[in-house]
Amino acid sequence: MKIAFQGEPGAYSEQAVFDYFGDVKTCPHESFSAVFESVTAGGCDAALIPIENSLAGSIHQNYDLLVRNELHISGEYFLRVRHCLIVSPGMKKKDIQRVISHPQALGQCSAYLRGLNVKVESVYDTAGSVKMLKASNDGMTAAIASQCAADLYGMQILEEGIEDNPENYTRFLAIQRELIVPKGESKTSIVFTLKNQSGALFKALSVFALREIDLTKIESRPLQGKPWEYLFYVDLIGAVREEKVRRALDHLGELALTLRLLGSYPRVVS
Amino acid sequence: MKIAFQGEPGAYSEQAVFDYFGDVKTCPHESFSAVFESVTAGGCDAALIPIENSLAGSIHQNYDLLVRNELHISGEYFLRVRHCLIVSPGMKKKDIQRVISHPQALGQCSAYLRGLNVKVESVYDTAGSVKMLKASNDGMTAAIASQCAADLYGMQILEEGIEDNPENYTRFLAIQRELIVPKGESKTSIVFTLKNQSGALFKALSVFALREIDLTKIESRPLQGKPWEYLFYVDLIGAVREEKVRRALDHLGELALTLRLLGSYPRVVS
Repeated sequence: MKIAFQGEPGAYSEQAVFDYFGDVKTCPHESFSAVFESVTAGGCDAALIPIENSLAGSIHQNYDLLVRNELHISGEYFLRVRHCLIVSPGMKKKDIQRVISHPQALGQCSAYLRGLNVKVESVYDTAGSVKMLKASNDGMTAAIASQCAADLYGMQILEEGIEDNPENYTRFLAIQRELIVPKGESKTSIVFTLKNQSGALFKALSVFALREIDLTKIESRPLQGKPWEYLFYVDLIGAVREEKVRRALDHLGELALTLRLLGSYPRVVS
Repeated sequence: MKIAFQGEPGAYSEQAVFDYFGDVKTCPHESFSAVFESVTAGGCDAALIPIENSLAGSIHQNYDLLVRNELHISGEYFLRVRHCLIVSPGMKKKDIQRVISHPQALGQCSAYLRGLNVKVESVYDTAGSVKMLKASNDGMTAAIASQCAADLYGMQILEEGIEDNPENYTRFLAIQRELIVPKGESKTSIVFTLKNQSGALFKALSVFALREIDLTKIESRPLQGKPWEYLFYVDLIGAVREEKVRRALDHLGELALTLRLLGSYPRVVS
């Protein structure tokens, strides 16, 4: 199996690939659109993409790419994001004068960093900051990244779990070319558009509420070329093979202008 | 009147301030949070913040700041984003070898830029790219920014409206310390949280649908510290002084865990 992810080797996304798929070959890509292209073209068998972080919110670019591509969701995975303070082997905490990482990781450790009282600098990537640490080897720089990145570059972890808020999870989606039929408890993801009229979203949600189907997420994105009209993404509990879900989607099809099934897949109870 | 905005002088936000407030003193700020702080502390009388672009979607940071601060929405303004190709005076189109701007502006002109067949480079700000153009004055660089930025730095506009998609609008919100009572047709913005139970959002939307109150926008943002629970932002047609809106909000108050009015303000029919 060859699995695509976005980022440098050692990125949190690569760690999630190993956690979810096990012992596979990973293929790093520069951008999310390159990840989708490599699965579509068959260069990789599947990909794992981050879709939402519990602190920062949705990764909208991946919502947009799910619509622009013809791939299917085959699974979900929740990664607990544990940031590590990483230094060159032998360095001590008192040697640190500068900390580098991706701005989001720095932001998520800001209380910890204030306590260190050091210079903080943004770089393009978390794993990339460890690569830079290794290259510079200046005895005064630390990086913030995953354990995976520290291991990859042979650097030393001084402290683990330095994020200010421990409720820091990223939800990933596995995507592939084929639609799967999941067994056991499932989730289904759909995307639809509605007529721009009063009560349209309320009616759309009624097809689920009246059948007691739980929604776990609703997200809206702008409809290109139609200012202030939206695409809606919904995740619900259940699989399309279940009759009440199938009937709800048929019912939504009556109300919606467009409706697309992104996939039914095993649910992870987080 | 002193009005705060985020960005460099000549930014699209500054242009929106002049369009909306007329002849006022503008105060540029580096970050959106600095804009909120300056109005809260009384350094500025009001601010104009971008909340959503018709192509790129919501500016989530400003949704989050509306909740973290105690300011009120007093108006809305829709800016048609018209990107200009800007050069040093006397330069011609055939002289251009490099185009600089903010990545979002470059992305919105990508078809046009492919036609020019030049090198494209990202910089931190649209108006900042014109400032850099003026400073370098190398006879081969062009910038993409607003007409306002070209005027400010005495540069020349070679072509206007070079964006690929003309349906490019940004919605701005005026924010101030005092809650206003709008006259005429109005919009109301609220933010609420719900119990994490089946059908909760459907029930919340029913308070509007059953009273035939139109919603123009719904947005969800993560609730900090409660993974996969959400804050919902809703814009609706009507003002809190109207009985049916007041009753709907009372009704929502029965269902919601928290409910906050961000403001009622004159509606702009776009």
